[in-house]
Order: sequence, then C-alpha cells, then structure tokens
Amino acid sequence: MRGQGGFGIPTGRDKEAQVIGIDWGTSSLRAYRLTPDGVIADRRDTQRGILSVTAGGFPDALREVAGDWIAEGETRILMSGMIGSRQGWVEAPYLPCPAGLGGLASAAIRLPFEDADLRLLPGLSCRDRHGVPEVMRGEETQLLGALGDAPAEATACLPGSHSKWARLAGGRVLGFTTHFTGEAFAALSGHTILGRMMDPAAPHHPGAFARGVARAKQGGGLLHHLFGLRAASLFGEIGEAEAASFLSGLLIGHEVAAALEDGVAPPIVLIGSEALAARYAAALGAFGVPHRAAGPDAAARGLALIAEHLP
Amino acid sequence: MRGQGGFGIPTGRDKEAQVIGIDWGTSSLRAYRLTPDGVIADRRDTQRGILSVTAGGFPDALREVAGDWIAEGETRILMSGMIGSRQGWVEAPYLPCPAGLGGLASAAIRLPFEDADLRLLPGLSCRDRHGVPEVMRGEETQLLGALGDAPAEATACLPGSHSKWARLAGGRVLGFTTHFTGEAFAALSGHTILGRMMDPAAPHHPGAFARGVARAKQGGGLLHHLFGLRAASLFGEIGEAEAASFLSGLLIGHEVAAALEDGVAPPIVLIGSEALAARYAAALGAFGVPHRAAGPDAAARGLALIAEHLP
Repeated sequence: MRGQGGFGIPTGRDKEAQVIGIDWGTSSLRAYRLTPDGVIADRRDTQRGILSVTAGGFPDALREVAGDWIAEGETRILMSGMIGSRQGWVEAPYLPCPAGLGGLASAAIRLPFEDADLRLLPGLSCRDRHGVPEVMRGEETQLLGALGDAPAEATACLPGSHSKWARLAGGRVLGFTTHFTGEAFAALSGHTILGRMMDPAAPHHPGAFARGVARAKQGGGLLHHLFGLRAASLFGEIGEAEAASFLSGLLIGHEVAAALEDGVAPPIVLIGSEALAARYAAALGAFGVPHRAAGPDAAARGLALIAEHLP
Repeated sequence: MRGQGGFGIPTGRDKEAQVIGIDWGTSSLRAYRLTPDGVIADRRDTQRGILSVTAGGFPDALREVAGDWIAEGETRILMSGMIGSRQGWVEAPYLPCPAGLGGLASAAIRLPFEDADLRLLPGLSCRDRHGVPEVMRGEETQLLGALGDAPAEATACLPGSHSKWARLAGGRVLGFTTHFTGEAFAALSGHTILGRMMDPAAPHHPGAFARGVARAKQGGGLLHHLFGLRAASLFGEIGEAEAASFLSGLLIGHEVAAALEDGVAPPIVLIGSEALAARYAAALGAFGVPHRAAGPDAAARGLALIAEHLP
C-alpha cells in the first residue's frame, strides 16, 4: 500500500500505526498528521516555538496544536528539534554520529503525557577532525527525511542561523560541520557600522550577492573582506540597496569555500526555505559545484521514516 | 640641538617653530604641545572625540583643549585623525599611497581659525591586490611617527576596531590592509548567542586566548570556528570566564593568519595600547613571527615629524 501524492513509504504496520509528527524549533512549531504511508493528511505551521512557551507549558502547547487530532483517535506523537534542548520540554542527550533511522528511533525518550504515546528524539553530535564538538537538533530528522533511504554517499546543506553541512551514506549521518553564518550576518548587519550603509528595506540584489561570493573566493580573509565593504561604500563603489546582499554573499561564500575544503560528495542537496536555498544554489554555482534542492517537507518525511522504526 | 628625554628630532627651525599636535579621533582627542625638538612639553588626553562634538562646535572644542597654550604664544596647530572625515571639521580627501612625511605635509589643508595657523592632515588610501579600496585616518601619523625615519622595509600592525597592517619603506607608507576584528568581536560577543556563554566581568584569560589563536590556525573557516565555541560551551569544554578571551584569540588569530599570507617584513612593529598590543604579540608569537612594540606616543612623534615638512 503506497500513499497517493505523498512520500509513498512502504510500511508493514497496520492502520493503527498513524503518527503525529512535531518539528518543534526555537521560533516555530510545525505539526503533521501522517498516514501509515507517510502521507501528510493534515498540517499546522505555528509560531509556538519553544521560546514562546513558558516553563511547564509544553503539554498544554502540544494539546493546543494537536488536541483535536488526538480526540479524533491519534495515539502516537513523535517530536524532534529544540524541544529536546535544555530550554525545551526535557533535555534529550545527543546521539553520537554515525546514526540512522533505527538508532534515532531507539534513542527516542518516552515522555509522560496522558493523552498519547509521546516520544522525543535526541539530536546528533560528532567531533570535527580537530576534536571540537558539533551538535544539531531537528536537522537530523530533515537530513534523514531527504536522504535517509539513499544508499550512495551524499552531502547535504541546511542553510540557516547555524548552517549545517552533513555527510550521509547508507541511511546514516556520518558527521557534520556547522557554520555561524546566519547569526553572524544578523550581528554584523544589525550592530556594526556596516549596517549604517545598508537600506534595510532593499530587496535581495542578486548582482551584489554574486559580487560578495566572488569576493569570498579571493584571499585576504573574512575580516579583511568585511572592512572592504565599508571602504567600498565610502568610495561609492557599492550602494545602500546592494550592501546587505553583498554581505550575505560574502558570508555564504566563505561558508561554501570552507565546506568545499572539508570535502563534499556532489551534488550538494539543499534542504531549507526556498529563498535561502536559492542563495546557496547561486553560491555553489559560482564555485562550480553541482547541487539540487531537496523535496519539500523533509522534516515530516523524516519523522514518518523514524516512526517506522520506533520500538 | 636635541631634546632631553624626548624624540630628539633634529630640526632646522628656530624656536618659533613650535607646534600643537592634535590626534583627534572618533572617541578621544589627544593634544600635544611639542617643542621645536619634538619633545612633548605638555599633553592632554580627553574624551572630546568627534562624536562628542555637535556640528560647528569644533573650533570651540579646540579652544577648550588648547586655548591656554595659544594664549601663551603657540601659533601653529596640526591635526590628524577622524577630525578630517565627513563627520569631522572638514572632510579632507585621502592621499593615495605610497605617501610619506613630505607628501602628507604638502596635502595638509589650511582651515580658517582666527587664533592660530591651523592645518588638517588627510588620511591615506590604497587598493588591495584585488582592487578593493582601503582607507585610514590618523594611523598614518602613528605609522610615520614609529617608522617614518626607518630606511629599511618594515611591517607595522595597529590593532583596534579596524586593525591596520601597513608596509613601509624609505619613510613612506607603501600600502596597507584593514581587518574588521575589533568591531566583529563587539558584535559577536554583544549580539549573538556567543555572548550568553560569557562572563562579561571576567578578566583576560591568556590560556583561553591561546586556545582561540590555536583554533584559528586549523582549517574549517572562521564561521565554523565561531559555532565550535558555542558547541564547546554546551559540552562544558570552555567556561564562562574563558569564552570572551577564546573569541578574542580566535578573531585575532584569523587576522594574523590572513596578514601573514599577504606577506610581511618581520619583525612586526606593534603600535597601540599596551593591553591590545600584548594580545597581538602573543598571537604573533604563536605563529612564530618576530615582533616588537613601538615606542610610546607614536602619534605625537608623527605630528612633530610632519610639522617639520609643512610648507
């Protein structure tokens, strides 16, 4: 039995094996009512991220979002993301890489919740080649949703405040590296002199973004390149409508350059919002690296795949 | 005739050739009463930087700081720094590199000021090897004060919000590069999640600083290294009292690595506050690069040397 227009995940479970998947992040909560075939029967995108919930308020927040689905007969809920962090419902220890669908399912924590069988997925951890720790929470579910059933080696990039580049093979996440790109952009554009040369209302400027990426490919270092933006503005060589896009291209370009040095298995699979993935696609194109966009709803697909492995 | 305990700059001028030197920056104004031998006869360090002065208020601010010296007979004033920027008294066009004492003196602008012969020095500009513009205002005076009479090739580093690395030879500044290090540190420590893992009252921690410099020497890129600090904190591998010093070492380490790639002529001459110069000395030491501290009062010495060349 395969879903119609959904993920079409083959399943050995019966009709009772439905599940509610919750992708619960810092600023948003996305809930999916998933059929046994992994099809999204219903969905809710809310702003009920963990930062919007006061301590002890998580059970009520969950009922608020999915209470009617439970009343209609759903009995199983699987959650991933920052809901498993210190600031979330319960802190779930990180599962070390390499890790796949079965490992994550086995490591899921049962939470006391009278309305349903509630499980919380851990995040993943690893160490970079120099021994420095790495962590993710939620991205592992997206990664496995996009690539968990791909047998070949693959590299995925999840752009964001803390962008992740992950290596996968045989349905497992082998390791990953994180770049502070989005948060650095916010701090540099919002709290340095660079922000004073930017028109905050300007739309994305692809030409200026491309110039920023090209600059990142030159020597001199990121800190030098940041001052160059300031000086170019003083000399009238970059406009207020271009500066933010240039900075975005500069930072993403530095991230891509570092990730490529680390070794990747193209095509890079881009997982994330269309607008941000398009910028990374442009940057990868400038570096001559093949890439493709993952399908939509990678988190929902990952939750459905992991749910199949729950003990 | 040579000064006692001062710079001992030989001069052909008579006693009337005394000068008041003003190093007028964004947040501070330093005034020097200089003898014909370049000795600092008197000095005033004030917080009257250009940002503290309202438009049109510069002549009064100058009288406030140096009016009594003028009343006692001083007739010449030479100013350098951000006082020559768009936000200053008058915008002085940048003088392109290479430039030395004579070039700067010739390019000084006479300003209408009824109490004395008042001149304003330009800043310097150049382009990096990729054609991106570079600017400085005030540092050129410090550079020439420290190295303007050194015949050999030299590299100087002036740490700060916008750190400068300059190449000099034959008494001229050949070119320079700027790194956004200090301002990036302020934005990242003050306006990202990295700040939340720092004890803002912690003193400088040399061991953590050294770890940050060592991290900068590894691959992976600055944006990856920034996230590594976050993850190390999550894993209890760096303490709240260490995180700010680690970040400082990481950023300064990346700056030094980029500057060395650019090519330098050791020993690097460090010009600036003792505390910051000590950090750069530690970082240069970690890279195995010979360095030395410039003598004190490089700006005053530079103003005295340039004044000798005024037309």
